[in-house]
Amino acid sequence: MAELRGLFDPAGCAVMGASADPAKAGYQIVANMLQAGCEQVYPVNPRGQEVLGLKTQNSLSQIDDPVQMVVSAVPAHYTQALIDDLRMRQRHRGDVRFLVVVAAGYAETREEDGLQRQQALLQACSSLDIRVLGPNCVGVVDNRSGIDTTFISEVSRQEGGISFVSQSGAMGAWLMQDWASRRPPVGLSKFTSVGNMADIDLVEILDHLREDDSTSVVGMYLEGYPQGRSLAESLHRLARRKPVVVLKVGRTDRGARAAQSHTGSMAGQDRIYDGMLKQVGARRASSVEELSDTLQAFDRLQLPEGNRVFLITQAGGPGIYCTDELEKNTSLCLAEVRERTKDKLQRALPPFASICNPEGHADITAAASAAQHARALRVVLEDEGVDAAVLITVPVLFMPAREVARELIQLTESCTAPGKPVLAVLLSGKPVQQGIRMLETNGILTFPTPDRAVRALHHMAEYRKWLRKGEDQHAGG
Amino acid sequence: MAELRGLFDPAGCAVMGASADPAKAGYQIVANMLQAGCEQVYPVNPRGQEVLGLKTQNSLSQIDDPVQMVVSAVPAHYTQALIDDLRMRQRHRGDVRFLVVVAAGYAETREEDGLQRQQALLQACSSLDIRVLGPNCVGVVDNRSGIDTTFISEVSRQEGGISFVSQSGAMGAWLMQDWASRRPPVGLSKFTSVGNMADIDLVEILDHLREDDSTSVVGMYLEGYPQGRSLAESLHRLARRKPVVVLKVGRTDRGARAAQSHTGSMAGQDRIYDGMLKQVGARRASSVEELSDTLQAFDRLQLPEGNRVFLITQAGGPGIYCTDELEKNTSLCLAEVRERTKDKLQRALPPFASICNPEGHADITAAASAAQHARALRVVLEDEGVDAAVLITVPVLFMPAREVARELIQLTESCTAPGKPVLAVLLSGKPVQQGIRMLETNGILTFPTPDRAVRALHHMAEYRKWLRKGEDQHAGG
Repeated sequence: MAELRGLFDPAGCAVMGASADPAKAGYQIVANMLQAGCEQVYPVNPRGQEVLGLKTQNSLSQIDDPVQMVVSAVPAHYTQALIDDLRMRQRHRGDVRFLVVVAAGYAETREEDGLQRQQALLQACSSLDIRVLGPNCVGVVDNRSGIDTTFISEVSRQEGGISFVSQSGAMGAWLMQDWASRRPPVGLSKFTSVGNMADIDLVEILDHLREDDSTSVVGMYLEGYPQGRSLAESLHRLARRKPVVVLKVGRTDRGARAAQSHTGSMAGQDRIYDGMLKQVGARRASSVEELSDTLQAFDRLQLPEGNRVFLITQAGGPGIYCTDELEKNTSLCLAEVRERTKDKLQRALPPFASICNPEGHADITAAASAAQHARALRVVLEDEGVDAAVLITVPVLFMPAREVARELIQLTESCTAPGKPVLAVLLSGKPVQQGIRMLETNGILTFPTPDRAVRALHHMAEYRKWLRKGEDQHAGG
Repeated sequence: MAELRGLFDPAGCAVMGASADPAKAGYQIVANMLQAGCEQVYPVNPRGQEVLGLKTQNSLSQIDDPVQMVVSAVPAHYTQALIDDLRMRQRHRGDVRFLVVVAAGYAETREEDGLQRQQALLQACSSLDIRVLGPNCVGVVDNRSGIDTTFISEVSRQEGGISFVSQSGAMGAWLMQDWASRRPPVGLSKFTSVGNMADIDLVEILDHLREDDSTSVVGMYLEGYPQGRSLAESLHRLARRKPVVVLKVGRTDRGARAAQSHTGSMAGQDRIYDGMLKQVGARRASSVEELSDTLQAFDRLQLPEGNRVFLITQAGGPGIYCTDELEKNTSLCLAEVRERTKDKLQRALPPFASICNPEGHADITAAASAAQHARALRVVLEDEGVDAAVLITVPVLFMPAREVARELIQLTESCTAPGKPVLAVLLSGKPVQQGIRMLETNGILTFPTPDRAVRALHHMAEYRKWLRKGEDQHAGG
């Protein structure tokens, strides 16, 4: 699918409808392009103002440099003018390959005008050899190539392995703004908003992301897709290569009707989608938070070899709370460690630590030092019966979060049992912010609550199981 | 239960084991007392250093002023010295009424030493007419009287109607730090950590909070309580007066075993607790986030008269997402409004707004201005078929969150349909922070996600239903 490469890494990008008015999408798009680091951005506006220090051209044809991508923010009723401008450019230069149409007012209105406009635009572009993303989308972000055609207020510029494709611009904006606001921001590879999917659609994007080296995990917000079989096959090919996490809405009858009213998607019977996603190895998230947590876990943690989790908590309450969540809402189980491991824990921990009572959980108590947190973790990771560890601590003034962070960072730098995921939960608020930032910038993933950590780990363990089933079948067949 | 008033509003509070070392609990307790605004705090330490500018006394008896409460941070093995000091004070002054024992090392260790210490302390205090909170607790906070005996790093000093009682100090610290870190902080009335419950226990605290004017809603973290019937009766009395939200852990076998290992609580069969909580009208939260959201909703919103919700969203995706959550995980239903209301919405909103398709949801689209958000909300609140409204918006540069906030604030100041709760969700991250802060400081409650808003609203509607059932029975009998 090298075909779509230019959508994410175009040589030259023109912004039609660029504006000097900060209250317009045509301003924010140029601002985002510049902030993303794009050096070949060309604002186009018939009124010819300057935009953010860049000279504006009256039309596409006046741009001397190559223009592989055109982002259009001009209102839908100027569609014919847009087509004329594209036709002129192609006649003289023939270099435009992709058109991203940000404006609404096309087929999604389900009115005659809008349908005709979309049809006319599509026919013209097809004859001009231009692929179309949208209309009614917010376009693409690529942190490797450095482009951002969206008008989303804040987008993470932190390069990472997560790529996200969305059937709703607003759901995309929700995640993008959330990720950009974290400290440090969540690492992003590519974001694509597909809008009306007049031409380029979900499956093409998924296929492209499968082959994309900078993408380690794919997230998708899905309302519905007309060719279920084609989507299933694409997801299956993708899941065999890298994890994919789907937030599929329309779980209820009313939700499905709302989806149909929104993008015209036939959400279909939810249990059919549910079964399909399971079968093709895609993980289904039940909330935006779960989607976000799970994407980060896949991107930044090693896959666990199995579902046996050891839980280390420095207080009883959060330990019981986490045990409940783990046992009730996940397919994870508490690990049974060897007697030698228990002995080592006993020696490493304060006298009243509660070790493996029940199995798989050490309550190291509030008397535990920061060093004892790390020591307990090391001992547990070295046990062969443990596939992953969750560490929950509520630091106090005399055992500050930054000390726990320092010890954990040292541990991961020297640990003899690599390859096992560790999920850290530091509770809570301002007193732990510095510790969380230290951990995150040193590659240790943290979660805001114990329940969110175990949900993400559950998806990882289930994906590992699905992969192994595939390997076994392959080996057997 | 006027008996416990002095626990929250003591005339004079001595801190035994006060310390000038910021790495000690005995330092943080004094710091928290001062920060809470307590003017009669007396640090006690045999070494007689100065603590945070306050003169330290060698013993309780040296304090000339009245001392109604003693907070002890001295290690458990000095219990006899603590008893001796209390006895001396009572002989000469007889003014101590409450002892808060912060130290661990008592019955929770389940070792002979600890059990004996707790027994000795209890017997002595009983003979000295002193009630004991703890041991192994973090004590109490009261924002009205201005005391804080805890060593929690950050506690909200914002007065509000929420009181919280916890069987785990760490779970309490988690919530306290989280609430203190919000901008503005969550409003708190009282916090109580009951620890080992050697003397003062959960039920006594619940009974006190029932009569407490500054408490509008009670939250509880519960592992287990030996006298189930007494707890049920107390909760029932409480729920008839004000809402109560319970996070009961030990939902699973392993979780129950962890609870037993922690506080020795017999968590019992979870379904028995579950049935009891339902019957007595307590709302059961399934996560800390749900507990926190629901407490805030009860404290700050009007109770809805029924379960009919109208959903206003400025984008399709979040609307479908919220519809799913509402239909799947709550007993709420989407409201059916009159034709006149639909006509009014049509006139008030952009041309492509999707109105009541499905029923109970208006997608006002990204073309909607801030004023149109407020206008749609007003129209909907005026319909008699609507008990509550959820408003979800993903502001963009050209329709900033602060403008939506301003319009909503104006609306609530002038609205002709008071008494209906409005739950606002502004998505997301830094771009909406200012808008959220404006709404919150003007009395409009916001939620971080649509799903969290509808879960909180669900609890309110269910509580209203339970209250009405009781009224009907009363009227019938």
